[in-house]
Amino acid sequence: MANANTTALASALSKAMAGIHQRGWCDGTGGNFSCVLEREPLKLLMAPSGVDKGSVAPRDLIEVDGAAQVIAGIGKASAETALHLEIVNTCSAGAVLHTHSQAGTLLSQWAMEDAGSTDTGEHTSLELKDLEMLKGLDGIKTHACSVHIPVLANDQDLQALSQRSRPFLPEAPHGVLIAGHGLYAWGRNLGSALRHLEILEFLLEQRWRRLLLDALMNSSKTV
Amino acid sequence: MANANTTALASALSKAMAGIHQRGWCDGTGGNFSCVLEREPLKLLMAPSGVDKGSVAPRDLIEVDGAAQVIAGIGKASAETALHLEIVNTCSAGAVLHTHSQAGTLLSQWAMEDAGSTDTGEHTSLELKDLEMLKGLDGIKTHACSVHIPVLANDQDLQALSQRSRPFLPEAPHGVLIAGHGLYAWGRNLGSALRHLEILEFLLEQRWRRLLLDALMNSSKTV
Amino acid sequence: MANANTTALASALSKAMAGIHQRGWCDGTGGNFSCVLEREPLKLLMAPSGVDKGSVAPRDLIEVDGAAQVIAGIGKASAETALHLEIVNTCSAGAVLHTHSQAGTLLSQWAMEDAGSTDTGEHTSLELKDLEMLKGLDGIKTHACSVHIPVLANDQDLQALSQRSRPFLPEAPHGVLIAGHGLYAWGRNLGSALRHLEILEFLLEQRWRRLLLDALMNSSKTV
Amino acid sequence: MANANTTALASALSKAMAGIHQRGWCDGTGGNFSCVLEREPLKLLMAPSGVDKGSVAPRDLIEVDGAAQVIAGIGKASAETALHLEIVNTCSAGAVLHTHSQAGTLLSQWAMEDAGSTDTGEHTSLELKDLEMLKGLDGIKTHACSVHIPVLANDQDLQALSQRSRPFLPEAPHGVLIAGHGLYAWGRNLGSALRHLEILEFLLEQRWRRLLLDALMNSSKTV
Repeated sequence: MANANTTALASALSKAMAGIHQRGWCDGTGGNFSCVLEREPLKLLMAPSGVDKGSVAPRDLIEVDGAAQVIAGIGKASAETALHLEIVNTCSAGAVLHTHSQAGTLLSQWAMEDAGSTDTGEHTSLELKDLEMLKGLDGIKTHACSVHIPVLANDQDLQALSQRSRPFLPEAPHGVLIAGHGLYAWGRNLGSALRHLEILEFLLEQRWRRLLLDALMNSSKTV
Repeated sequence: MANANTTALASALSKAMAGIHQRGWCDGTGGNFSCVLEREPLKLLMAPSGVDKGSVAPRDLIEVDGAAQVIAGIGKASAETALHLEIVNTCSAGAVLHTHSQAGTLLSQWAMEDAGSTDTGEHTSLELKDLEMLKGLDGIKTHACSVHIPVLANDQDLQALSQRSRPFLPEAPHGVLIAGHGLYAWGRNLGSALRHLEILEFLLEQRWRRLLLDALMNSSKTV
Repeated sequence: MANANTTALASALSKAMAGIHQRGWCDGTGGNFSCVLEREPLKLLMAPSGVDKGSVAPRDLIEVDGAAQVIAGIGKASAETALHLEIVNTCSAGAVLHTHSQAGTLLSQWAMEDAGSTDTGEHTSLELKDLEMLKGLDGIKTHACSVHIPVLANDQDLQALSQRSRPFLPEAPHGVLIAGHGLYAWGRNLGSALRHLEILEFLLEQRWRRLLLDALMNSSKTV
Repeated sequence: MANANTTALASALSKAMAGIHQRGWCDGTGGNFSCVLEREPLKLLMAPSGVDKGSVAPRDLIEVDGAAQVIAGIGKASAETALHLEIVNTCSAGAVLHTHSQAGTLLSQWAMEDAGSTDTGEHTSLELKDLEMLKGLDGIKTHACSVHIPVLANDQDLQALSQRSRPFLPEAPHGVLIAGHGLYAWGRNLGSALRHLEILEFLLEQRWRRLLLDALMNSSKTV
């Protein structure tokens, strides 16, 4: 981890993780976060598994290769590295941020149940539409649109989960939900991934409030 | 940006934006913020478009003229500058603060739908009444009153949106909502605009809680 | 404001106000806060009216006498000083903290409406019971109890409001609510008043969640 | 409190308490927190009773023996020390963290009422299942599981409460709820206890949102 680029990225990633922890999006050693250091051969900078993501110093980050093996630094790579690599490869992402927020956990589980698809291997999607904040996602120029975040059933077999995610990634709005688990957001670099994360978490919280309001209006009108 | 007045304002605006971002009211490069530097000819100090509003240093602010052209500093002026200028001109505002909060986004969209006015060009209003916090708005001396925040349909044509806002601005309670988008709050100077922003965001969050409570009481009483 | 006691109290009060503002309990120059400096003759240290309570330096506090006249420092005494004085005199309080929280604003207004008492001059109360946190109020030794926070209709005539509050203060659980306005909490000194404030605000937020839950359970069971 | 180990633990515990207070989980001198300093004979480092847990300096912590007697430092040991000791002894815990959060207070009381067991001496449990965050609890390897947090009726007789808790502790998921009171979380050391606390509080807040959503969906579907 000698060169200046790595040093700057490590510092930026450490700071980003502290901010994300501060917002309550990766409590209890939850979540994981990575940046691409090199493309050929692929090398990721990421947090080690099983540590509090709010207090990882730049020097405590690890380097991981394209086969999810640790090649520098001390610690284990999370099993979730497989999905980070899938997203980096399929979406040409430069950074992947994986969070466990209240809204992401709840809505992903609810969407799956609402679709009647609770078995492993199933999937659905969560629609977000007509909101100005959608324009914070790369490629969206107007609020008057609808995006569908893919929602995949959770799976402890991360190789299988990564493979299942593949067909959904190219069309995903820079984010995918794992049911009862949380959000993976990405972007072409760390700044862009952070922006997409803030936007998607905002929209998920908004969707939660909207769901409450719609259900209430529905039940108070019909009676 | 040489003189002492500009330096002080730039510093105050940068600090205000950091505080607003901290509260989660301008996630993901959302929102925009401006102060009047000079009236004749009109010159605004504002955040450039497309950056994280929580970490704009005073020196990174731009200066914009009355035709929304950047005249100093590096970066693009947001398309929303048109609405900032409309408010500055119509309301003699000294500062305009535009946020994307959860309550502002949801209630503006709900109010529009509730009024059955979802087409571009439509408008409605959101009533706030009988609350002590209303006295934080300039000109209001008692809680025993009712104010109506204008709510306008969102529009990516900011010239059109600004023009549509004009008839509503003189009577607006130092704030206007754009549906599914957020709040514009203003005041005669930055301090006054910040006070109005805090008051209006407090009242919007209060309205959201009240809406939940009323719908619940309604549905549990009627059954 | 020369002596050491005053300096220490001013510093503690300034710090307390910053913390209260940080929690969103006195947005937009709302709320007010006072400590007793001397009993004979009565002298209060308090925040001036109309300023952001989150950034009042110790030297910017004012001193007010028992007739609500400013006797030291620069600025106006809030009209609400009358109620601070009433509480200090009736309850032998050493500090009075007045906040505008979401839960306090909503529940006070709801309690009044629920009791059918919306005219000026009316009053009701809000019951809190069976919670361990009640033990944070001086004099309460078990969760197995019930306290009633008096709720008074709001009034811009603070002399009248203070007078109306008098019969309720001796039995109040170190706090009283003004409908659609907020909470006054007090204690024998600043530390005790801060504790009572945190306890009462916690209990109000808890009551809000409980109200939602009860109404929901009610409406989903009865249908 | 001379040796290096004690100094390091005192500093870590003081910092942990400040962070817990910052999150609103121990308002108004509520909650209590302990670490094991020595096993033979048992010696706990803990916060004194009746102080603001957010601002306890390392030197203000007290040492308590296995009979809940203060053996070093200034201040009283909380009556709740009995339950800390019970957990340390029964679960071989190295740290015990006791919080008063909104969700923990509400759901524990609701679970007890829902089970129809409101008398002192009664107990029930709260189920958490199918969530990735469960894996943050030691010993859990998959989201596809269900854990039951024991919920005990509150009691001011802490000896009795501790004794009643005993049969439930060995199977508890590193946490137990006291109805209308809060959560006790523990772990083999302070880091592990903090992780379990963050995980359980996250899951309780999630359960609260889920409860709202289920009740709403239920009432809007049935009508």
